[in-house]
Amino acid sequence: MPFPPPSADKKILEEGAAFTPKFDAHGLIVCVTVEAATGEILMLAYMNALALEKTLETGVAHYWSRSRNELWRKGDTSGQVQKVVEIRADCDQDALLLRVEAGGDGKACHTGRKSCFYRKIEATPEGVSLRTI
Amino acid sequence: MPFPPPSADKKILEEGAAFTPKFDAHGLIVCVTVEAATGEILMLAYMNALALEKTLETGVAHYWSRSRNELWRKGDTSGQVQKVVEIRADCDQDALLLRVEAGGDGKACHTGRKSCFYRKIEATPEGVSLRTI
Repeated sequence: MPFPPPSADKKILEEGAAFTPKFDAHGLIVCVTVEAATGEILMLAYMNALALEKTLETGVAHYWSRSRNELWRKGDTSGQVQKVVEIRADCDQDALLLRVEAGGDGKACHTGRKSCFYRKIEATPEGVSLRTI
Repeated sequence: MPFPPPSADKKILEEGAAFTPKFDAHGLIVCVTVEAATGEILMLAYMNALALEKTLETGVAHYWSRSRNELWRKGDTSGQVQKVVEIRADCDQDALLLRVEAGGDGKACHTGRKSCFYRKIEATPEGVSLRTI
């Protein structure tokens, strides 16, 4: 399932029906993953063409681990398999939005939390810090 | 407002209070921007240190335009200024989540839509295509 290259025509890219994901110089596209039922943002990760193909073929989220440099079927070790409900592309097709049902305990973050976005930035006169929410 | 470098200690990075955004090789960090009131994902963009500083200083979302290679105060031409309600960092501090109130007509996408994620990927026996939702 090779993906066709992005069109140079903005109109086709933004309004057309052709899915032409734009991978970056490292062959990756960024993906925001949300819980389908609630819309809560669970995590942000990357896919290469193989991970995207596997995700489309199997209906289960696959990513590309930049730290381990390998294909990563989310949940393989944790049981937190993500069943894909919907995938959306953004206007210029260089970002994806995955709506998923999370299996296992429903948590997406390797720290044991549901969402990776568990800290809020707080700016005080002393500087900027993080607070767990 | 210089940002301190990320700690090599995962525990400090993931559980500490120090905000140490991890910029990529191009000096950018990815940001997901959602409408604070609804949680709807509006757009995905990038910030460099300057854009992040300006966002923290002014309370209005600034990004780095990769296509124009310049600082971009969202809404300068469209009126769709984004007032920042909250900024979150993810576990390894290489992604940000902005919760905003969108000014003007509340639309975030340059195509005139509220969200940049207006197309859904559909896989059929004939192949993968996009459908506007």
